[in-house]
Amino acid sequence: MTGGPGAPAAGRPGTAVGPEGQAGASRLALDRAAQDLLFRAARTANTFTAEPVDDAQVAAIHELIRYGPTALNGQPLRVLLLRSAAARDRLLPYLSSGNRAKTAAAPLVAVLAADVDFHERLPELFPHQPQARQWLADRTDRIAQARFNATLQIGYLLIGVRAAGLAAGPMAGFDAAGVQREFFPDGRHEVLLLVNIGRPGPDAWRERLPRLTAEEVIWTR
Amino acid sequence: MTGGPGAPAAGRPGTAVGPEGQAGASRLALDRAAQDLLFRAARTANTFTAEPVDDAQVAAIHELIRYGPTALNGQPLRVLLLRSAAARDRLLPYLSSGNRAKTAAAPLVAVLAADVDFHERLPELFPHQPQARQWLADRTDRIAQARFNATLQIGYLLIGVRAAGLAAGPMAGFDAAGVQREFFPDGRHEVLLLVNIGRPGPDAWRERLPRLTAEEVIWTR
Repeated sequence: MTGGPGAPAAGRPGTAVGPEGQAGASRLALDRAAQDLLFRAARTANTFTAEPVDDAQVAAIHELIRYGPTALNGQPLRVLLLRSAAARDRLLPYLSSGNRAKTAAAPLVAVLAADVDFHERLPELFPHQPQARQWLADRTDRIAQARFNATLQIGYLLIGVRAAGLAAGPMAGFDAAGVQREFFPDGRHEVLLLVNIGRPGPDAWRERLPRLTAEEVIWTR
Repeated sequence: MTGGPGAPAAGRPGTAVGPEGQAGASRLALDRAAQDLLFRAARTANTFTAEPVDDAQVAAIHELIRYGPTALNGQPLRVLLLRSAAARDRLLPYLSSGNRAKTAAAPLVAVLAADVDFHERLPELFPHQPQARQWLADRTDRIAQARFNATLQIGYLLIGVRAAGLAAGPMAGFDAAGVQREFFPDGRHEVLLLVNIGRPGPDAWRERLPRLTAEEVIWTR
């Protein structure tokens, strides 16, 4: 492993270069360039260039992140890509005002939802436990499971967007019930997050906000 | 970018080598070795070697993944590491029977929880919006936000464990209310997941389970 103070990424815009970051980087198996691409130099983008994001890029991201673990291998995340102007126009009224302009301009917007009936696929996805589908017969429990595991998958997806060399702009500021009615009227899907995807445009982000330290969030017994 | 059929990882145990995987791999900015380390060759481990996982490794993982995005930069995830035999013994009764032996033998067990009062830190973490703390005054809304964003962070954490060259063994099969009472009696934390962490031992996993295709989970409008 290489890395440590003076490693290639030090001083690059958007890279964390504090002493703590330097020390940790060299202890990881993941190379420094990948650390930067996925975490250290990666930022939530608020502006995007006009360069399109094509279906093959999205498929490549999915093909990578689908290997991330979910309980019972259930994979409840579903992704609705809004490409057409008409579809985008249907979304915008549900966004908080601060999210509208950037979403209208982003090359691609993904609506991320959990399939609350994901258990129907378990006989194929978890075949060595044929009774797994029945474990999720209770809809309330199942919705909680769908939400939790789809959210884990959203974590993988945001990393996957970065793995493709793109920037993600996750947005929680929207009327989720409205988006659900508009795009998932079947009652089978719960909308969790919107994500703009593209290449960062001018002034795509402000200064990196502070992060909590290990001492603040990790305890040992 | 290199990669594609015949790339270094092809045929390695645990690596996906289907035609779809090969095609997608070469479209990503992330190099193939990192793709394998984090997703393609990475597996949920059910057995572990005795090799310890030290605090410096955990700190390095945290120092990487803390850059993952959360709403309002709230970072609600809290991690309780169980190292001592006494602490481990307190956990085991709350596990499903199938999770007990592997957890007793894992070098490290992490209890992952959301701090439902994470908003108290927002004046430091999201300083340009001094009113953000007030947006989360409603406890029910706040718990949902804490749960969602901590779960995103768990997604980053599982990737981070792999970035350290370690295997994660996430476990949803446990009595979460019991673990919460036992380890977080303050009522301020909601336990979300347990994760065993270490190096994979003998027979650490079975065959890779099937994954849904892009056609099954991604729709475009």
